[in-house]
Amino acid sequence: MAILIAGAAGFIGCNLARCLLPRGERIFGIDNLCRGHLSNLGTLLEHPRFSFVKADMHDIDAFREAFAGLQAQEPISAVWHMAANSDIPAGVEDPAVDLRDTFMTTYNTLLLMKQFAVPNLAFASSSAVYGDFGERPLTEDLGPLLPISNYGAMKLASEAAISAAAESHLRRAHIFRFPNVVGVPATHGVILDFVRRLRAEPSYLQVLGDGTQQKAYLHVSDLVDAMLMLEAHAKDRINLFNIGPVDQGVTVRWIAEQTVAAASPGAELRFGTGNRGWVGDVPRFSYSVARLQALGWKPSLESVGAVQRAIAEIVRQEAAAGG
Amino acid sequence: MAILIAGAAGFIGCNLARCLLPRGERIFGIDNLCRGHLSNLGTLLEHPRFSFVKADMHDIDAFREAFAGLQAQEPISAVWHMAANSDIPAGVEDPAVDLRDTFMTTYNTLLLMKQFAVPNLAFASSSAVYGDFGERPLTEDLGPLLPISNYGAMKLASEAAISAAAESHLRRAHIFRFPNVVGVPATHGVILDFVRRLRAEPSYLQVLGDGTQQKAYLHVSDLVDAMLMLEAHAKDRINLFNIGPVDQGVTVRWIAEQTVAAASPGAELRFGTGNRGWVGDVPRFSYSVARLQALGWKPSLESVGAVQRAIAEIVRQEAAAGG
Repeated sequence: MAILIAGAAGFIGCNLARCLLPRGERIFGIDNLCRGHLSNLGTLLEHPRFSFVKADMHDIDAFREAFAGLQAQEPISAVWHMAANSDIPAGVEDPAVDLRDTFMTTYNTLLLMKQFAVPNLAFASSSAVYGDFGERPLTEDLGPLLPISNYGAMKLASEAAISAAAESHLRRAHIFRFPNVVGVPATHGVILDFVRRLRAEPSYLQVLGDGTQQKAYLHVSDLVDAMLMLEAHAKDRINLFNIGPVDQGVTVRWIAEQTVAAASPGAELRFGTGNRGWVGDVPRFSYSVARLQALGWKPSLESVGAVQRAIAEIVRQEAAAGG
Repeated sequence: MAILIAGAAGFIGCNLARCLLPRGERIFGIDNLCRGHLSNLGTLLEHPRFSFVKADMHDIDAFREAFAGLQAQEPISAVWHMAANSDIPAGVEDPAVDLRDTFMTTYNTLLLMKQFAVPNLAFASSSAVYGDFGERPLTEDLGPLLPISNYGAMKLASEAAISAAAESHLRRAHIFRFPNVVGVPATHGVILDFVRRLRAEPSYLQVLGDGTQQKAYLHVSDLVDAMLMLEAHAKDRINLFNIGPVDQGVTVRWIAEQTVAAASPGAELRFGTGNRGWVGDVPRFSYSVARLQALGWKPSLESVGAVQRAIAEIVRQEAAAGG
């Protein structure tokens, strides 16, 4: 039986593929390569148990053709759906982006899983489904969920569609809600933004907002580790878990200072005003991973360590890309 | 300023229109007349302050043309979005039904409200967003919401999209979650189903399931009353309320007995097995309206009275339709 990773050429998808492959199953990857890149898959592309197909998942005919082709090679037992729009401000500007890339990819995945009788789904949801609960710890049983970005809205819509499909035709679904994930290959996010600004202009770093936004960060290696643990050990029909570090996170100001120290020591820090970087940005939140911890899991890196490692990785990535 | 009722020719929309009109504003109605009927609007169609336009809201071009035409008559200050697929089993069979008629109608409404700068939205959500919490009272702050029907999933997806729009461009949103609503003009639901079966075959009534399903029922007159009260008095940016009776509801068996007594006295009752009528049907739930009651509102009819009144109304409706 094979496993299909949707969004395989993206940040999380390619890290997941590398961790799944050693388990021995055949791994299929699908991606439209709009935000993902084939180079992210590197040597995986030559691995005898890995196959990649380029297709637009929001186009049901193209997706069905790709899905059927893979299914004909080897029956698919599980889909890991990691494909989504990853550019939250773009989705605030134009809701069509998250409708198409975040929700319709899920909706079409469920259609094809029904058609081809694929029983198991693992889905990358997001802390963005919660909206703004202020300082209140975000636990899985909170409601009502009032997301403030179209990204969060279409992740929540995806969860809802998966839940209905679990009642109708899926055997098991895992829904993982995670906050900001850092590491490489970085395609977006505050660290990459800072590193790129400093490479373009080494003398100062302009920060959006006043720098007091505080968030928890998880390194992608820990995220994949937690997802695989939950997929192996959480056996309800629907298994919905927050995944994240156990700390209160770090501020944007601290990230800016660390990035300056690593990428352009001595550069001046300049801050804007307000504690929201953009419409749809939740300024600070406390993320509860008590359910996950109850299963005995904890991340190898807290927010501080995750961000520091990611800064070093992204500085290397950009230096390599920039020559 | 005018008010637009989406789904105006449907069960809730036409009852709402009759209650809004006396307030003095211009009322626009839109409906694709797939499940709604012009006859539901009756004499409203001749009222000088009521205008109706037929259009498919899931077709953004058709919807935009209709919206722009109404907006040119008089600027719209609020949309009451009551349009949706009302046939839950149809949506379980084919998810495209609820995607199109329940979610995309909301998504397109939000697009046009942004384009035409319409500030206020009232939305008919549903108790179906909760999924199956067993005997636990359904309060607005429950989570995670795991709907078991595509209908519930697409109502939850709509809530999520509205929430993001409230952050971005809406001034105020009201989200009303209500359980089974009864009354006329009935287009679906257990009472109409029973009345029609008994008219076709007066000697017995076959009930889906064992009849132990227990639900709370609200009469449509009380629903509209509660929505108008909340729209007038709940002034947060997003106002999300359960609306319903304060009792524990009635069983399908009791409804069957009452319908037989009214429509075909002496008919034999026959029951199936299992306590779920269909995939996507929540067998029993306890609905909390504490938040609504805290505002001083209570329904004029509890479940028993609402169902009894609706049975009488629907028996008359079907007799008139059947000649």
